[in-house]
Amino acid sequence: MLLHTIFVIALAAESMTAALAAGRRNMDWFGVCVLGCVTALGGGTTRDLLLGHYPLLWVEQPAYLLVTIAAALFTIAVARVMERLKLIFLLLDALGLVVFTITGCIVAMEMGQPVLIVIVAGMITGCVGGVLRDVLCNDVPLLFSGELYATVSAITACVFYFGLQAGVPIDLIALIAMGIGFTLRTLAIVFKIEMPRFVYSPVRDQSSKR
Amino acid sequence: MLLHTIFVIALAAESMTAALAAGRRNMDWFGVCVLGCVTALGGGTTRDLLLGHYPLLWVEQPAYLLVTIAAALFTIAVARVMERLKLIFLLLDALGLVVFTITGCIVAMEMGQPVLIVIVAGMITGCVGGVLRDVLCNDVPLLFSGELYATVSAITACVFYFGLQAGVPIDLIALIAMGIGFTLRTLAIVFKIEMPRFVYSPVRDQSSKR
Amino acid sequence: MLLHTIFVIALAAESMTAALAAGRRNMDWFGVCVLGCVTALGGGTTRDLLLGHYPLLWVEQPAYLLVTIAAALFTIAVARVMERLKLIFLLLDALGLVVFTITGCIVAMEMGQPVLIVIVAGMITGCVGGVLRDVLCNDVPLLFSGELYATVSAITACVFYFGLQAGVPIDLIALIAMGIGFTLRTLAIVFKIEMPRFVYSPVRDQSSKR
Repeated sequence: MLLHTIFVIALAAESMTAALAAGRRNMDWFGVCVLGCVTALGGGTTRDLLLGHYPLLWVEQPAYLLVTIAAALFTIAVARVMERLKLIFLLLDALGLVVFTITGCIVAMEMGQPVLIVIVAGMITGCVGGVLRDVLCNDVPLLFSGELYATVSAITACVFYFGLQAGVPIDLIALIAMGIGFTLRTLAIVFKIEMPRFVYSPVRDQSSKR
Repeated sequence: MLLHTIFVIALAAESMTAALAAGRRNMDWFGVCVLGCVTALGGGTTRDLLLGHYPLLWVEQPAYLLVTIAAALFTIAVARVMERLKLIFLLLDALGLVVFTITGCIVAMEMGQPVLIVIVAGMITGCVGGVLRDVLCNDVPLLFSGELYATVSAITACVFYFGLQAGVPIDLIALIAMGIGFTLRTLAIVFKIEMPRFVYSPVRDQSSKR
Repeated sequence: MLLHTIFVIALAAESMTAALAAGRRNMDWFGVCVLGCVTALGGGTTRDLLLGHYPLLWVEQPAYLLVTIAAALFTIAVARVMERLKLIFLLLDALGLVVFTITGCIVAMEMGQPVLIVIVAGMITGCVGGVLRDVLCNDVPLLFSGELYATVSAITACVFYFGLQAGVPIDLIALIAMGIGFTLRTLAIVFKIEMPRFVYSPVRDQSSKR
């Protein structure tokens, strides 16, 4: 099935971009693999933990774990070449975002969750991997820093869910939702579209953090 | 029920204080919502994951998710006004601490957990949301920095549990425990009471971190 | 049983080293206890959440929680003495690594997991506690920084699993695997053996973090 092929390619791509982030922090080879797995599989794992959806995908089919580990190790060998393919990886990352979102929605719908949870499950699957990567790298998550990333995930999930409700066949609406999400994300990258920020600097008391 | 009303108010208040923390880091609107939800609902979610208590509250009743998202977005509009209401938010935060603690105890007791787990479940529900907020904001959790916060949660949970064991009706002992906890937390804020710290600086070898 | 005695000693040792890390950051007494518990019990807890293995050990037997809390508080009293016992704690930490790994493997094997998941479960149990400690302390996890730590866990798990498959009695192969892992870890500390690192610094564009 097309969706599954794209899913595996996206897993590898997410793992490779995470491996580069690990390399920038001079992590060891083991750290590179862990960061790759957490980034590629962390979103779906978080979704499954929150929904109580056992067994986890990579526990049931450890082959997915092998794919992400192999992709992370492969990155160590080809990092110099990847630099020149930066655009391709940005596009693969965008593809991963939309395909992960759709698989998250499907899992939640198969469990009979209400619409809001279906969309949230899609967003968690699409976005949480990157948040975990940033927390492990000791950064403030990029996800919260204005990039049109989670919004793309939300729109993809909504198109998919409501299209399905409207009677469009699942394969067709998955392709349409992924096409719309992918296009939006690509446009956001090209035109540097950003989410509005909430800039708040307390006037009187900078020290009050809670 | 009174407890439930206070619970919803506290959810909104926790979400709003988290939204301010997001604003101080110039997060985008999406980040503001996520940080609000994680802070307000993260304690109960962590408790439910650890106890295997499915489905999660906000998965079963997504209205709670809408309340926290709405509160976070509302904060963006009224941030300047909130600054003047800082005391009210400190009090609402204290209220949230004690009411979350009690709801955590009740969930653990309904599952038939032993006393230590009931108290830990109450403390996790009351305190973990703030820890997750601080980790996502890339801070050392405030919870560990001397404020009389977790201790108040522990005392509230103990009063509630042992009062219930002594035969006090649940509504009455909930109110008593919340009153005691809320008073303690307010006194701690007013008189700047702090937990003793463990200050340890290795004499010979600063580099040995493990 | 010998394995169980070593397990409890290792829990206490992990909690004590975490308490020292808390002291270096001037955390309060409560933070010291939490960091001790998270470090000592976090690996097994993460494994159980990922495998859906309920109830968690410390929820079912809260005595383990008391041991780690007591060890953390005890550390506050004896921190100055511990400094001179640094070598002993490094050895106890190595013991903890191998015994946690073996208990993780056993849990996964009792659940009938495939070989890769058994080894991953062992590694998660042995290593994740330290990662959680570092995230809560706002550090990049030491685990990813070249120390021969996770590799030792992986080798221990492999020796244990394949020895068991080869028909060696469980008590004997547990001792052999622990002996091999402990020796490797000690050699790595003494001779400062490190994992190869992946050092990647983008030539053209330092700002591209994703």
